[in-house]
Amino acid sequence: MQASTETQVQPPYLLFLGDVTDITDAKTAAGIKQWRGELCGGQLRLPGGTVDLGLPDLTLTQAVERGIKTMIIGIANDGGFIAENWIASIIGALEAGLDVASGLHERLGDVPAIAAAAKRTGRQLIEVRQPENIFKPGSGKKRSGKRLLTVGTDCAVGKKYTALAIEKELRKRGVKADFRATGQTGIFISGRGVAIDSVVADFISGAAEWLSPENTPDHWDVVEGQGSLFHPSYAGVTLGLVHGTQPDAMVVCHDARRSTLMGDYDFPIPNFHTCIDTYVAAARLTNPRARVVGISLNTSHLKDDREARQLLEVTARETSLPCCDPIRFGVGEIVDNLLRQT
Amino acid sequence: MQASTETQVQPPYLLFLGDVTDITDAKTAAGIKQWRGELCGGQLRLPGGTVDLGLPDLTLTQAVERGIKTMIIGIANDGGFIAENWIASIIGALEAGLDVASGLHERLGDVPAIAAAAKRTGRQLIEVRQPENIFKPGSGKKRSGKRLLTVGTDCAVGKKYTALAIEKELRKRGVKADFRATGQTGIFISGRGVAIDSVVADFISGAAEWLSPENTPDHWDVVEGQGSLFHPSYAGVTLGLVHGTQPDAMVVCHDARRSTLMGDYDFPIPNFHTCIDTYVAAARLTNPRARVVGISLNTSHLKDDREARQLLEVTARETSLPCCDPIRFGVGEIVDNLLRQT
Repeated sequence: MQASTETQVQPPYLLFLGDVTDITDAKTAAGIKQWRGELCGGQLRLPGGTVDLGLPDLTLTQAVERGIKTMIIGIANDGGFIAENWIASIIGALEAGLDVASGLHERLGDVPAIAAAAKRTGRQLIEVRQPENIFKPGSGKKRSGKRLLTVGTDCAVGKKYTALAIEKELRKRGVKADFRATGQTGIFISGRGVAIDSVVADFISGAAEWLSPENTPDHWDVVEGQGSLFHPSYAGVTLGLVHGTQPDAMVVCHDARRSTLMGDYDFPIPNFHTCIDTYVAAARLTNPRARVVGISLNTSHLKDDREARQLLEVTARETSLPCCDPIRFGVGEIVDNLLRQT
Repeated sequence: MQASTETQVQPPYLLFLGDVTDITDAKTAAGIKQWRGELCGGQLRLPGGTVDLGLPDLTLTQAVERGIKTMIIGIANDGGFIAENWIASIIGALEAGLDVASGLHERLGDVPAIAAAAKRTGRQLIEVRQPENIFKPGSGKKRSGKRLLTVGTDCAVGKKYTALAIEKELRKRGVKADFRATGQTGIFISGRGVAIDSVVADFISGAAEWLSPENTPDHWDVVEGQGSLFHPSYAGVTLGLVHGTQPDAMVVCHDARRSTLMGDYDFPIPNFHTCIDTYVAAARLTNPRARVVGISLNTSHLKDDREARQLLEVTARETSLPCCDPIRFGVGEIVDNLLRQT
């Protein structure tokens, strides 16, 4: 058996951006700023870093003076390791009196100098990627309450953003809804969740069941998807998450620029019909009523809104489903369809 | 990143059977006895235990007198935990001078009394389910050499047995072949492997790639399958294993008695055509030439061989594939077809 996390990270936050030069590498910090901007008091950048979230650049001393409680490592690098040149800042933060929180695979506490500094200063190291609860294999048993899962044609296509936007829209309409985080950024944003890619493989679907427990019949859990069934690295995580969530509804997320998988992969992204059929077939194992209720499209490569609207309309016709760009126009039509169909 | 194991377990073995009353719960012990019977010196059962592997029942003192070196926990229970009533025997084994090996999820060393006894006696605790190598996410990159993966309509349908029988048959015919273990029993039998259900979820396909590395073009890795794409608890592990193995050939394993999933599940087992199509569609993501080359059927519920042969013939006609019961008649026809088609 094995573990989750109901993280307690004390705001306000100082977002540590290291020396990153590409916003994609700072997507954890960017997500926290986007959805919990009111909790972010500043950013800390190293020489060479060009990513700017528009927060005040603070030294550690200034951060403490302004009442900041926690420095969050805002970087999502490949492999999830702690870079050598971050260590001085992390130790400095602890010595200045801040807690330090990280969602990397590598543990802060596994770097001896950081562990020693935490002990010396009595400050906390918070590792949100390290599950602590006891999980069991999934049971496949039906639970009351309703669940929506965002799924992807690829990784990093807006599954978290779409889920957060749907939670917000449902609540605006007076529908009971909770965002359920499955990755480090989502956990920082919502203050709880399970880093599903970090649980022991046998317990993926069990952890997903734990994450979206029994609820009242009119309540929606809006679960953040991970990976893609079409990705050769991460499809196992995705399938376990689909089976454990038992979604009544899914939203397929896609980045309109991509025709092959992001990164160093020579794999084509299948068309929407194949994606929809594959996700529905997988989900129906544990929920025969599973269906796709909309398409979430990232159209950020298109300059003007008219072009973006055209692409959404074409995609809506192709799939016979409402198609939204959540950042550009919101998720209203998807939520309309969700409430009509379920 | 995360881990594997190239286990060193010293024979001869004493197989610990606890108080199990169903041979399915003792499948680790049964597999070791079946394939490495020459290394098994005896069995140890607790009051109430009715499973009998036909080995001498030994006390710990008798085991030591007969030169036994290691007690293996031969039980595969749900959740992989150490039962309260085993602890005295485990401590007793250490005190008698034996090492103790386990393939459970729960670590022997995490039970304080067992850890203390190991320290006190200087004996070893060997945890084969605890990966120690560094893994990475799967790359999806093609490797030279050929790979066969056994896959299942359900869990515990003979995937390991089938893989071991195919390795044996290939070697008998002078074909280079290696069994690749992915579970605790397979690791005990072959002395190496990765407990694929115990790696961190993000690294399932990466661990499978590591397990069946680049090889000469005429070499077969015969990889032990895990779980089933149709099982709500374990399908994620199965999918990652399929993607990472990149099988050229698959053999679908089935227990002819079952029409629903084993255990406390209300899930039907799909027909062979659906199984074959689903596994082939999944495998083609990383190997477009993936195909199913045979059906392995457990016919142990049928009393006489004539009836068993009839069922195999019916299944062969239904699927247009060679159909074997490896325990009853061997896997000759499947290997014929494998060598003809690949």
